[in-house]
Amino acid sequence: MSELEKRLKEIVGTENVLTKIADVYPYGFDGTATLKQRPAAVVFPANSEEVSALVKLAQGLKTPIVTRGSGTGLSGGSVPVVGCIVLCLLRMDSILELDTANLTLFAESGVVTQKIFETAESAGLFYPPDPGSMKVSTIGGNVAENSGGLRGLKYGVTRDYVMGMEVVLADGSICWLGNKCVKDVAGYNLKDLFIGSEGTLGIITKTLLKLLPKPGARETLLVTYDRMEKAADTVSAIIANQIIPCTLEFLDRKTIQCVEDFAKVGLPLDADAVLLIESDGHSAAVADEAARIEEIAKQNEALKVVRTSDPVEAAKLATARRSAFSALARIRPTTILEDATVPRSELGKMIRFIQDLAARTGLEIATFGHFGDGNLHPTFLTDERDEEEMHRVEEAMKEIFDYALSLGGTITGEHGVGLAKKGFLEQQLGGDSYALLGMIKKSLDPMGILNPGKIF
Amino acid sequence: MSELEKRLKEIVGTENVLTKIADVYPYGFDGTATLKQRPAAVVFPANSEEVSALVKLAQGLKTPIVTRGSGTGLSGGSVPVVGCIVLCLLRMDSILELDTANLTLFAESGVVTQKIFETAESAGLFYPPDPGSMKVSTIGGNVAENSGGLRGLKYGVTRDYVMGMEVVLADGSICWLGNKCVKDVAGYNLKDLFIGSEGTLGIITKTLLKLLPKPGARETLLVTYDRMEKAADTVSAIIANQIIPCTLEFLDRKTIQCVEDFAKVGLPLDADAVLLIESDGHSAAVADEAARIEEIAKQNEALKVVRTSDPVEAAKLATARRSAFSALARIRPTTILEDATVPRSELGKMIRFIQDLAARTGLEIATFGHFGDGNLHPTFLTDERDEEEMHRVEEAMKEIFDYALSLGGTITGEHGVGLAKKGFLEQQLGGDSYALLGMIKKSLDPMGILNPGKIF
Repeated sequence: MSELEKRLKEIVGTENVLTKIADVYPYGFDGTATLKQRPAAVVFPANSEEVSALVKLAQGLKTPIVTRGSGTGLSGGSVPVVGCIVLCLLRMDSILELDTANLTLFAESGVVTQKIFETAESAGLFYPPDPGSMKVSTIGGNVAENSGGLRGLKYGVTRDYVMGMEVVLADGSICWLGNKCVKDVAGYNLKDLFIGSEGTLGIITKTLLKLLPKPGARETLLVTYDRMEKAADTVSAIIANQIIPCTLEFLDRKTIQCVEDFAKVGLPLDADAVLLIESDGHSAAVADEAARIEEIAKQNEALKVVRTSDPVEAAKLATARRSAFSALARIRPTTILEDATVPRSELGKMIRFIQDLAARTGLEIATFGHFGDGNLHPTFLTDERDEEEMHRVEEAMKEIFDYALSLGGTITGEHGVGLAKKGFLEQQLGGDSYALLGMIKKSLDPMGILNPGKIF
Repeated sequence: MSELEKRLKEIVGTENVLTKIADVYPYGFDGTATLKQRPAAVVFPANSEEVSALVKLAQGLKTPIVTRGSGTGLSGGSVPVVGCIVLCLLRMDSILELDTANLTLFAESGVVTQKIFETAESAGLFYPPDPGSMKVSTIGGNVAENSGGLRGLKYGVTRDYVMGMEVVLADGSICWLGNKCVKDVAGYNLKDLFIGSEGTLGIITKTLLKLLPKPGARETLLVTYDRMEKAADTVSAIIANQIIPCTLEFLDRKTIQCVEDFAKVGLPLDADAVLLIESDGHSAAVADEAARIEEIAKQNEALKVVRTSDPVEAAKLATARRSAFSALARIRPTTILEDATVPRSELGKMIRFIQDLAARTGLEIATFGHFGDGNLHPTFLTDERDEEEMHRVEEAMKEIFDYALSLGGTITGEHGVGLAKKGFLEQQLGGDSYALLGMIKKSLDPMGILNPGKIF
């Protein structure tokens, strides 16, 4: 047994350390295609004190630590570094408190997002962030990546629901940031610095979340179009009419065909675009909003509008969008999901660019995503064993990033930088802002042991 | 002419530098009682490049820079340091863009908050943050202090509306942070680090703000009670019924009497508490919400409920709350407005504590504030020339902070730390978190020239 293994076992117990190649293999990758690496060990701490002891050990041994939950990330944020310790927080899975007077929920990082949602719902409350992976992903991962989801347009992202957190710093100290006050301006806002920092500044061990009252009513619309432009015009008109629906998602022709083949939800195979729109809130407001959306869709020559307030029917319609990634992943051996995001007004240009790019390069690109947020997921259906094609995919991705940035966009709307996009970050931020990130990293993790090689 | 004066005039022009004692006097204090100091010079830059040149000059001369807008702050955040350069951004007062497709507004820091609100409103849009000083305060000051307001309960605070900013760093570099994308996870979230940093980490020169559709309807309720407990019970019941109104404000007996004497709005002088409640949104939702609130108020033995959807009548009711600070400021020579905030569930205890404290110390304390946010403004009516009384005021404030912290609260909900509360910050944050703040300050302003002595 190596010295590292021995000391890890002293901290978390023999049964909570993996070191055999076959045992650590599943912790060598996350949800991102083509990236994997072998860690020296995988450890499963039971509490913050063990996390702190592990960080101190890693500092002493100058061994990198890569923190992960369920590993559903899509930018390689939790892919190990060679020889690192993988800190897996899945054993820290307790909901510590549901406070219905203050509308907060306090949970350890390893709690699955879906359980957060369901616990809130059991008290008639609502935790809005709903990343695509929420049935599997952990809240700690959501916070570390600042995950988005389908309700972002109206309700924002994970960041908007974090009131406080416990974080273990690079020196092993355990800090608490934030509180249950809905307003607090005492000192710098460090909590927001750790949210979305992808495990590179500290290890988030507990999170205090804000909940909302559950909306009383919901209507769902599924709208099909024979041309993408009409879908884009519908979205522009909805916003111009000052309607901010809960959800405003779209699928392109290729995604529609794959989804229908996979999930049989009754999508017309000749449609060029589908919009999934959800309105929620007070029943009269929802009825009014849904009616106005339907009217706007028809004015913009929708082929068909299906509208329902029945939860079962609505869930079926939502399947069209929620199954998109799974449906696309069946087509070719390798599925690379991108995340370019632009200001809402530039969406039409961005979609047209991606379609032209696919035609020009002969690559298979299916696009779906959060239309209302300007957050697209152009998805490359490819084969990582085909070097020539992969080279073209990389060139095409670079073109997408360049074009998104030229429109005032971002290289990642909700998936994070991780390993996959770090080559593009300086181009987006500019030299001075990029240098500022480096200063913060150096200040909080001077030895660079926390998830090294990610973001930078 | 001193070397400093000469070089300042080279950068911003002779007419934009003040150095005479009488001229700089008005820039020696802000809205905080008892704090003042004399700067070496006051300069009025015209643009970010001039701000950058001034910061570089200050670095070279090792002279502190204190940035200010209208100086309405209530924690001494913009009170000068002896011999410093005061950087007043009031000349940088242009609204640079109103983008109705992306629902954003881009403005220089010297724009008055009210003008932001009105410009948004002219396009049928809505900028929610409404600090009490909004007719005078600047947006740059609001962002630097993360100002709150009366709509915080439903709409959040200034932070929630900042999508991007230009900031001049301590080395004079001009950084841009953020963009018009509603989702962006590219790199650390540094924008949120500068929001609320009170001029100690950088100088915010421009801000990109998020706007919302304007709510279609509004109802206002003014509810009076013969006992504070009944008002507190009403608020608890509103939240327990999962209603989150736009505004949920209160006045105590002393504030009611002062306001009525000052503004003659028809408040009953024998009332122990008044709640001002506003509901906004879709008309049917508002009518429903207002009716439910009225019912809850009556169940909790309200003396009287006045309810209106008429804008003129509503403005009159809101005057009761909006004039509270001005009304109280007339009573004694010195008015010290505190800002202790607790989790909503602890409000009753906190109010009772303040009432007992006033009785026990013989000090005049009037309390009003944002009941729904747990954000109280216990206001000491005193006389700074009376040393003995001021000593008792300081002791009483310390008791309020101690008690608020024991309830899981904060020393400041919306006014900032500045000079006034820096002695209490470490007690709130704890040693490790407090040290973390210092690390960030040292990293971004190693020579300590940006607003030194504030927060720390």
